[in-house]
Amino acid sequence: MTTDSAARVRVSPARLEDLVTKIFEYLKLPSDHARIVARALVDADLRGHESHGVSNYIKYIYYPGLTEGLINPAPDIRISHETPTTARWEADGAMGHVAGNMAMRDAIERARKYGSGFTTVANSRHYGMAQHYAVMALEHDMIGVSMTNSGVLATPFQGMEAKLGTNPIAVAIPAGEEPPFVLDMATTTVAWGKIMNAARDGKQMPLGWGYDTAGFPTTDPGAAMDAKLMLPLGGSKDGSAHKGYGLATWVEIFCGVLSGTGFGMQLGRDNVGHFFGAWQIEAFMPKPEFKAMMDSLLRDLKATKPAPGFDRVLVAGIPEWETMADRSTNGIPLHPTVVDMLRDYAIEVGAEFDLTP
Amino acid sequence: MTTDSAARVRVSPARLEDLVTKIFEYLKLPSDHARIVARALVDADLRGHESHGVSNYIKYIYYPGLTEGLINPAPDIRISHETPTTARWEADGAMGHVAGNMAMRDAIERARKYGSGFTTVANSRHYGMAQHYAVMALEHDMIGVSMTNSGVLATPFQGMEAKLGTNPIAVAIPAGEEPPFVLDMATTTVAWGKIMNAARDGKQMPLGWGYDTAGFPTTDPGAAMDAKLMLPLGGSKDGSAHKGYGLATWVEIFCGVLSGTGFGMQLGRDNVGHFFGAWQIEAFMPKPEFKAMMDSLLRDLKATKPAPGFDRVLVAGIPEWETMADRSTNGIPLHPTVVDMLRDYAIEVGAEFDLTP
Repeated sequence: MTTDSAARVRVSPARLEDLVTKIFEYLKLPSDHARIVARALVDADLRGHESHGVSNYIKYIYYPGLTEGLINPAPDIRISHETPTTARWEADGAMGHVAGNMAMRDAIERARKYGSGFTTVANSRHYGMAQHYAVMALEHDMIGVSMTNSGVLATPFQGMEAKLGTNPIAVAIPAGEEPPFVLDMATTTVAWGKIMNAARDGKQMPLGWGYDTAGFPTTDPGAAMDAKLMLPLGGSKDGSAHKGYGLATWVEIFCGVLSGTGFGMQLGRDNVGHFFGAWQIEAFMPKPEFKAMMDSLLRDLKATKPAPGFDRVLVAGIPEWETMADRSTNGIPLHPTVVDMLRDYAIEVGAEFDLTP
Repeated sequence: MTTDSAARVRVSPARLEDLVTKIFEYLKLPSDHARIVARALVDADLRGHESHGVSNYIKYIYYPGLTEGLINPAPDIRISHETPTTARWEADGAMGHVAGNMAMRDAIERARKYGSGFTTVANSRHYGMAQHYAVMALEHDMIGVSMTNSGVLATPFQGMEAKLGTNPIAVAIPAGEEPPFVLDMATTTVAWGKIMNAARDGKQMPLGWGYDTAGFPTTDPGAAMDAKLMLPLGGSKDGSAHKGYGLATWVEIFCGVLSGTGFGMQLGRDNVGHFFGAWQIEAFMPKPEFKAMMDSLLRDLKATKPAPGFDRVLVAGIPEWETMADRSTNGIPLHPTVVDMLRDYAIEVGAEFDLTP
């Protein structure tokens, strides 16, 4: 199976979103919910996070989850607890994208009224790409944050049992003329997909990504996949893996505990919690002053002299920004197997199949 | 110079705090400000963060800063901008501990009224140990966060110019019967002190801590100290150093930009900004439910089977908790050179010198 980009097929983001909406309507989601999910998945593809786009999770998580009853297509999503600036949401087993959109919008609305707003979400499901929710704050000229816990794949540092998820943190901060700062990072050294890719390609992986089943650092991606003992960011004692472990625990607490969902080891299959937040810029300072200083900082960072072996210095969010600029104009390059999968779904749900850009 | 603990002298935390208070009164701080600074420094020693205790910074930063006019002993610390849940503070060149205490207390007070509260601080000075402020939230059964930017010592990843500080993040979260979760991490792979210690001890350091002046990874701590190009957490491309760089940039924005202070490359000597936050637990859920689940999570993490080469699995905050339990009871073990320094200061300021536990 080739994965080079030449073999890929460019498709229209708008048509892709329409088709994916129809797939989720077929899976019994209300139209507005199906649209929210489709938009989130296509957003991931637009930003180059294909692992969280239409390629994998429809097939492996959402379709089986909705047909087997692990995900609730008609949830009673509601606020179960609140103060002026905060709320806990009960997702009732909803698609994470749907509950996440509602809770992030709520955080933004509270921030509009009070300067800052925060929400947790209980009993939700896989919500896709963490930054999708953080960047929702940007169109309101606010700072956004998004976290989720996830199925156990990582070991606490110094340990050899999977007890935490890859537990990502996303932070989006507006700038002026520069693209916004958008950090979106798993708190493990790498995403699970990187280990899978190394295994698929028959390559060794660096030390610091995972242990083998005996609890030793391994360069064998197959051994790491068997063990499911991903290492926290830092990768080793010398690399300060206790820091990545600390970040992952923070996310576990904010998403699992502060939502009342439960944490890694207690969670049933797919059950997760989220944390969202928003701050107004004007809650701290005048917006023009802030944006001018953001532009100045981001430009200074990008102007850093590259170290040997590197072409340029980036800022978090730039790769996604550049990818989105290309794909919005030229279409999303899908792997042929993904196109085939979507064609099969189109037939199954009775939708026209035309993704021409 | 020996650094083994047997050579150390145990001193009374309370007497040490009194002496340090007198030193800062001598340096023209009002008594209440001097007490706040002394308490912060002794807190660092109690928790085992000696680098941020009485040993180094009095001599190298605070004393010269206050006598040379880089730090303002009589600042007009005030709120320059606010909403119900947020405020920007102007520190007017104050000791960071003083401005930090006022701003963190303000965040806690806003959280008490509105569920959550956040403050930034402009034009402050070195505030010591990041967790000192985050843990202030714990006595109110709140979650606390504390960040600061700092003098440039680290390079953006893929670059070879120092443009960011070690930019720590601290998060403190209460538990029930278990010690609280307290994360306090520089966003570089290690603290500058670790590189200095390796140089002092004539040891090689691991790759991933810093570059040499040519921008290559080095194991020579002397070369790393010459270059001042510390690496972000992750330490390399394979180790995902873009994540540590992203975290450092986040801190730079929240502390430097969102306070209006300015960022790494623009800052005058010692000028920094801070960010503080607090959330009520009851803003999201009933406190007993939260604390019980926190205990359960922390116990489960600590019960993880240790990997080969490790005795036990910890949780962020445990080492400090254990150290504080020992030192509160048995005294703080100071290096003899620190005792000598304090004796000299006692003579200079005309204070009695008796630190007997």
